[in-house]
Amino acid sequence: MENNSEDSWQIAYDFAVEVAKKAGEEIRKAGESEIKIMTKSSTVDLVTKTDERVEKIIIGSLKEKFGEGTHCFIGEESVAKGEPCILTDKPTWIIDPVDGTTNFVHGFPFVAVSIAFAINKQLEFGVVYSCLEDKMYKARRGKGAFCNDEPIQVSDVKDIHKSIIISEHGTDRSPDKVNKIFSTMQKILCIPVHGLRGSGTAATNMCLVATGSVEAFFEIGIHCWDIAAGAVIVQEAGGILLDVDGGPFDLMSRRMVSANNDVIAKRIIKEIDVFTATRDDAPIPKK
Amino acid sequence: MENNSEDSWQIAYDFAVEVAKKAGEEIRKAGESEIKIMTKSSTVDLVTKTDERVEKIIIGSLKEKFGEGTHCFIGEESVAKGEPCILTDKPTWIIDPVDGTTNFVHGFPFVAVSIAFAINKQLEFGVVYSCLEDKMYKARRGKGAFCNDEPIQVSDVKDIHKSIIISEHGTDRSPDKVNKIFSTMQKILCIPVHGLRGSGTAATNMCLVATGSVEAFFEIGIHCWDIAAGAVIVQEAGGILLDVDGGPFDLMSRRMVSANNDVIAKRIIKEIDVFTATRDDAPIPKK
Repeated sequence: MENNSEDSWQIAYDFAVEVAKKAGEEIRKAGESEIKIMTKSSTVDLVTKTDERVEKIIIGSLKEKFGEGTHCFIGEESVAKGEPCILTDKPTWIIDPVDGTTNFVHGFPFVAVSIAFAINKQLEFGVVYSCLEDKMYKARRGKGAFCNDEPIQVSDVKDIHKSIIISEHGTDRSPDKVNKIFSTMQKILCIPVHGLRGSGTAATNMCLVATGSVEAFFEIGIHCWDIAAGAVIVQEAGGILLDVDGGPFDLMSRRMVSANNDVIAKRIIKEIDVFTATRDDAPIPKK
Repeated sequence: MENNSEDSWQIAYDFAVEVAKKAGEEIRKAGESEIKIMTKSSTVDLVTKTDERVEKIIIGSLKEKFGEGTHCFIGEESVAKGEPCILTDKPTWIIDPVDGTTNFVHGFPFVAVSIAFAINKQLEFGVVYSCLEDKMYKARRGKGAFCNDEPIQVSDVKDIHKSIIISEHGTDRSPDKVNKIFSTMQKILCIPVHGLRGSGTAATNMCLVATGSVEAFFEIGIHCWDIAAGAVIVQEAGGILLDVDGGPFDLMSRRMVSANNDVIAKRIIKEIDVFTATRDDAPIPKK
């Protein structure tokens, strides 16, 4: 298979949409039957059987299509089991099988499958399937962003006072981080903005930026698999990505502002109390 | 027309569902065309043409069906124009034509029509139509709660650590209130709970309690028209309503905790920093 021609990435892109659809159907079905939680790393970081099963379905389908060994995979569940989380120049799939596990367990209506593809460390396309809403978001670099095949575009609001901003409280409950998260949210609310929202899934939050429902989404502590697909979708919908300190966006840094434009992004960045998050690609400490 | 027989309330209940559906279709149509904002009382309290038009459609339909003068009406838009907001023993409709105006203006996917009916100051039934999701929630006292005609039930979670709690930042940006709202949310998050959410509409939030997607919703500053229909739906789904200080729920007090059960409600109440909100039925100060 020719992996480096433009057409072959189109085939991969179309296939990723199919796989996301299939994965989303699995998630919906699992949600209808009883949800059993296998293990927990904390009360807020639920890992369900579904999570593991869906990741296996996705990676299995991709390996079958593109051949074992030619492509790399970074997946939430694989990394949790100790596989490396390093982005190389090789063709790499970055996968979150169930973004919004807490929502999933509770039946809260935002749960997404997120599949992104990068080569030479550049994101080539991204697919986010918000499976309970049945909304398929997708974008390929230079080819536009879509929701259920309709083109989507970020909001044209430049006045921060007319914006809705989205963020999350995250899963880390250490007092210093929680204080900074709440302080940032309060300062942003009191700029003032129209409102703050939180869907409970980063992938869906980014799609809400891409469709213009909100002006910006920011978070510290997210992982590359939560935002890789959304990153392409936001950019192709006309939006921008920055680091929380205003520098360039770095997929592995676990820090991100995604916004409809530079004006809104920079206004929010002024209010963000930055805290440290260990990079996704940091060396695993020896035990 | 016999207004006091049980059957006549069933007719009114069924008619309210029809009217909510029609109103929701109007809202969806308006959302697809350009949204023009007429007046603003603040940057976060948007009043749109749609709001006024939809309230006229709802009240017009109800007056036509039940006769001018026999029923009373409490509607968000009518009260904004100076009509009284007093709940008497008379048959009274309590209406929010567009709950989630900010969401509506931004295209954020939670916008609801809320229609409740009370007699002898007791809520008899409530209808909430989440029109962008096309979910019709309804409940009549003693007759159960439904979403799209399927029975719904609150969550059976009693362990606060396994709960999702929903609240809103409201539209008041006065520092003392905002401080208390954020302080309460932070304390609740750090109990810890699984997560905090906010849909941007009180009516939808109450339906999320009723379906078991979240364990509780609380807010100070909401109005009777935001929660009257949801109040019946939560109770008929097996949930409870309390004042934020643990006392009995008072529809006109602008304070409410709605929860799946007493255990969750009381645990949350411990963390709520109460602030003052002028009652909906307070006398209008003379100028």
